[in-house]
This record gives sequence, structure tokens and C-alpha cells, in this order.
Amino acid sequence: MPELRKDPIVGRWVIISTDRAKRPSDFAREQTKIRGGFCPFCYGNESKTPPEILAYRPNPNGAPAPQRDSAGWTVRVVPNKFPALGIEGNLNRQAEGMFDKMNGIGAHEVIVETPDHNASLATIPERRIEDVLWAFRDRILDLKQDKRFKYILIFKNHGEPAGASLEHSHCQLIALPILPRQVVEELEGAKQYFIYKERCVFCDVIRQETEAGTRVVAETEHFVTLAPYAPRFPFETWILPKRHESAFENSPSQMYENLARSLKLLLMKADRVLENPSYNLVIHTSPVQDPTNDHYHWHIEFMPKLTKTAGFEWGTGFYINPTPPEEAARFLREASVEDVQTPAAVPAMV
Amino acid sequence: MPELRKDPIVGRWVIISTDRAKRPSDFAREQTKIRGGFCPFCYGNESKTPPEILAYRPNPNGAPAPQRDSAGWTVRVVPNKFPALGIEGNLNRQAEGMFDKMNGIGAHEVIVETPDHNASLATIPERRIEDVLWAFRDRILDLKQDKRFKYILIFKNHGEPAGASLEHSHCQLIALPILPRQVVEELEGAKQYFIYKERCVFCDVIRQETEAGTRVVAETEHFVTLAPYAPRFPFETWILPKRHESAFENSPSQMYENLARSLKLLLMKADRVLENPSYNLVIHTSPVQDPTNDHYHWHIEFMPKLTKTAGFEWGTGFYINPTPPEEAARFLREASVEDVQTPAAVPAMV
Repeated sequence: MPELRKDPIVGRWVIISTDRAKRPSDFAREQTKIRGGFCPFCYGNESKTPPEILAYRPNPNGAPAPQRDSAGWTVRVVPNKFPALGIEGNLNRQAEGMFDKMNGIGAHEVIVETPDHNASLATIPERRIEDVLWAFRDRILDLKQDKRFKYILIFKNHGEPAGASLEHSHCQLIALPILPRQVVEELEGAKQYFIYKERCVFCDVIRQETEAGTRVVAETEHFVTLAPYAPRFPFETWILPKRHESAFENSPSQMYENLARSLKLLLMKADRVLENPSYNLVIHTSPVQDPTNDHYHWHIEFMPKLTKTAGFEWGTGFYINPTPPEEAARFLREASVEDVQTPAAVPAMV
Repeated sequence: MPELRKDPIVGRWVIISTDRAKRPSDFAREQTKIRGGFCPFCYGNESKTPPEILAYRPNPNGAPAPQRDSAGWTVRVVPNKFPALGIEGNLNRQAEGMFDKMNGIGAHEVIVETPDHNASLATIPERRIEDVLWAFRDRILDLKQDKRFKYILIFKNHGEPAGASLEHSHCQLIALPILPRQVVEELEGAKQYFIYKERCVFCDVIRQETEAGTRVVAETEHFVTLAPYAPRFPFETWILPKRHESAFENSPSQMYENLARSLKLLLMKADRVLENPSYNLVIHTSPVQDPTNDHYHWHIEFMPKLTKTAGFEWGTGFYINPTPPEEAARFLREASVEDVQTPAAVPAMV
């Protein structure tokens, strides 16, 4: 008998197939590859992107200070060349008959995670992942000064089936002038739970899950990685800070080191179990103007692209998940990954 | 400057790209094809599906009455061989610590639209599409007697990228023991509008759109086909009955003939403009236990699969649409289709 399970935060019901539970090898693997050609994110091509917003360039003692838009960086943030939203202007809310519209004001940036065209977030060293996380934080702290922005979303599309259009490993940041519906629902759901229980729903989830253990994938000092109780997608996995913290950018500095470790571990395990899947990764965090609250708990959601979203999901917002999260968690938990630190692979400057 | 537009029913904001608006030829076309092999939906293979629930078999004067699970049908409804939900049993709602679950009770049926393996809903005659619509109605009227069911969803996944797993043209029906979240949001949004305006929001949309004309694709006597003001996807198109009607199954009988005409016209136009795209088609209708109300207006949503849903959409429920609906509507409106009635293609019986 299939099971209907309810997500405790947003109240979304999900159908979990138990009879025909799918194992990792049951999913047809789609090509992750994106056609090659010229890459604007490689060393030497810095002039082919819009001017750099931020970059980390190691500057050893005695070396001359590196130049903006030159090679030698380890992480680089640039505006998206084809932004979904424009940075200049005002919202100018207006009607169009019975309809409502406003200008598409916002920021759309690209975080290039590594200069190595063939690396991925799973293969670069932990120290480099930590840099990427710091770059996220720096950009959020800068953008939240712009009071037009209500929410900053950081996400990653890895592989063509997950929506990536460039092969070179990168994340994206979009600053929005409104709170998106799904964010509002998550915040509202968490708030309702807090009003009723006077506890954070995510803290309660972490407590129950770490005690039971069946859906836990991994734990580090500050983070727990788990399969949620009512996942929309097979092998959907969340990484949550163990201590309550409502906003990503407010985490104390030692957290980023630990998060880099948790993230690398999850991505390596997923690559092992699911054979280098395409995936989406999304940071769920509090709105920029309300970064400190008792009810919301920031976290990362990892969604490998193994199934197609079809008419049923589009028509209902209700998902059929063919892999129970207990099984997904067990596969990921038991996957052994060589925990060898690869040396910091920074290509020679051009 | 991109535009942010708000869907007037559910309040969902959508980013409409105006600068880099995509024309039909700009979308990379994915293979619609599904690997062939044995087809359980062709004549002669009736015993390979679960026992038939319903079939229409033309029975000319004097001919012997055709047998159940034999060839000779024009439309055939069978249980899904791999149902997402089970028909037997009770919900048995229960807790699992802080979580909630229930048994996955429901119905999952397949409506085989034609015995012709190579036909599609766009190529079969209008009269046959009408039969398919009557089959939907018959199944809804039967299933709504089962008081465990709160909602009946009818949808179609056409082509592999849209989630179809069998090539032979078919629709699916899922009867659910709960009202899915997205349905609740649409109903609630429509109800709020009705409370405020004392008018149906869909009726208002139809009035404004048919007056303006810019987003109208086609009109028949009883239906209007239009691109919604804030579509999530490029070339998303809705077909709505012009007169207020809250439930699909309550429509007067002459409506189905007219709807078959509207549906065939849209699918032919989409095949012409978008070169036989994969698509999802979903009937949005009132909950089975509340089929007659003033605020909700049933309709069909057609969503061709031209873009990938990526991290941004999963993280926010907020969509970036690269084709303004005015342009999509113009392409579809201006597409000429041979409006020739193909003869009813029913293969010879095996």
C-alpha cells in the first residue's frame, strides 16, 4: 500500500510508493553533459563576462596585488550576462485592467566556484567550497543594503537536465523585490508551528530524526544531513545546522568550514550512489529584512534530477515519490567515499 | 526591462522576459519519442492490461454485441497497471512521532484515446476527441460516488520529456483522498476574489481578454482559448468555457462537441508552431463534493515542455518565462492549420 505523508513545515502531502520502491539503479540516467566550446568562466576569459563584482585571489607575501578581471582567482562573482531581472530603476507597480504588474527589478549574479573547467563542487577541496560559501555570504551582506530587495535566493543547477546552460561549475544568486509564494508558505508554516508549540519545527525535526536515525545520511559537528520525511523527489536530501539559526548569512564563521565538509560529503555520496546525477541545490533562508527570528531555520535542499515532473505534479503541486526516504538515506549513508583531500587545483595563469 | 506579472487567481508572480523574448524556433527541441516495443494499448493486446473499466464500442445495427476486453473499441479505460494509489482500504490517518501519514488510497486509471498507435490527440477526428471527453465525464460521475475521494484529476503527459512512459496516446485519471495544496490555493484565490468583487475571477478574465484580444488564440461558440496574463511556461495556454461553470462533469452535453473542436484546434496549432512539442495537459475543476459554486470556473491548462524547471523555480515557486504571452498567443493565433476532418481511423480488428 502506498503511503501519503505530510511535510510538517508546509503541509504538503506526498505519495510515497512502497510497493514498487525504486533503487538507485532503476532510474534512467540522462546525459549530464552540456555541449562544450568557448567557456567564459575559464582563466584568461575574464573580459568575456560583465565586470567582476567580487573575487578571491590568493596574494602570497611579496607578490604584486592581482588585478580585477584578471586570472589568479579561486572564486569569482560576476553579473549574469543574460539577467532575468534588471538592477536599475524602481518597481513602478501598476494595473493593466484587472491585472497587476511591476518592473522586473532585481540582481542576478553568477558565482564561479573554481577556475578548473573539469572540476565540480563535489571534487574541489573543502577549503575551496568554504570560499564559495563565504562568497555567498559577502554577496548577501552587500545586496541586503539595497532595501528594494525582499529575498535573496542562492541556487545551483548542475547538469543539463537540471537546467544548467554552461558546463563550468557555478552557482547563481537572484535578489527579488518580492517574497516568492513558496518562501511565504514555508515561513508561514514554520510560524504557525511556532505559535502552536513555541518551538521551531526544524529543531523538532532534527531532534526526532537524529534520535531515530533511519533518515539520517551523515552528521558533522554543526550540521545534520537527512532525507526529509515527505520528500517530493527520490533522494531529496537536506543539510541543516543543528543549532537554531534563521539566516544563512548570520552563521558564525566556524560554521562555513563545517558546512563545506557536510556539503562535499553529500555530493560525493550522491555521485557514488547515483552515478554523477544532475541536481538542483537551493539555500532556504529567512527574508533579508527579517534575518533573526525564532520560527525559521535556514537549510540547504539537494534535489537530484532522476524523474520527470509531469501533468499530475503541475496540476496539483502534489508529488509521487518512488523511493521511500528511509531507503534513499540508507543508500547514501552506506556509500563509502574516499575522504582524501584533493590538493587545491588552481590552473596556471594564462 | 523584464516585467513581473501577477496571476490574478492564485497571486503567483512570474518574471516575463521582454528583452530576450524567445520565439518558437529558439527552444531546443527534445526527442518526444519513447522507445517502442510491445504496446498494451493496441488492438489485440486487451488481455495485457488490467480488466477494462469502460470502453466505447460502436455496434452497428445487426452486429453482435462486442465483448469486454476485446478489440473494436474507440476509447478504452483501464486501471493503471502500476498505480500510484491503491483502491482498497481506509485512510487510517496516524502519527509517526511529530509526522502525519495515511494510507495511499485512491484510483489511478488510464484512458486510451484511440486504438491507432501512431495517432495523437491532435490527429484523431473531433468526434473521437469528443468520445474521450465523454469517457472523462463517465469516469468522474462513477468515482464521485465513492465518498473517500475529495478530488479527481485528469491529465495527459505527451512525449518523454513531459513524463510519458508509453508512446500510445493516452490520458490519466487520479482520484485523491485529499484536496491537493495547489487546488486549494486556486479555489481559495478564486473565492477571495468573489468575496471582494461578487464576480468570478475567471469570468472577469474572459471578459477583459476577449475585449482586448491580444492574448486570445481562438474562439468557438462555447470556449475561448487564450494565453494567461502571467503564464509560468512559454506558450502556456488555457481553454475556458465562456459561460460560468464550476465543474467539468456538469457541462451540458453540447459543450463536449465544442470543446473537442477547441482542443483539436489548439493541439494542431501547437504542433504547427512548436513542431510537435511534448506537453502536459491538465483539467482544473471543482472538488467532486462541491461541484456547483459561484467562484470557481473549470478550464484546461496546456503546458508545452520547452524549458527546464531549475533551482530557481524549485526554490521559490516563482517562474521565469522567456516568451511574453502576447507573442505566444500571436504565433498560435496566426498559425494556419488544415481544418480538414480526417476520417475516423479505427484499425481493423485482430
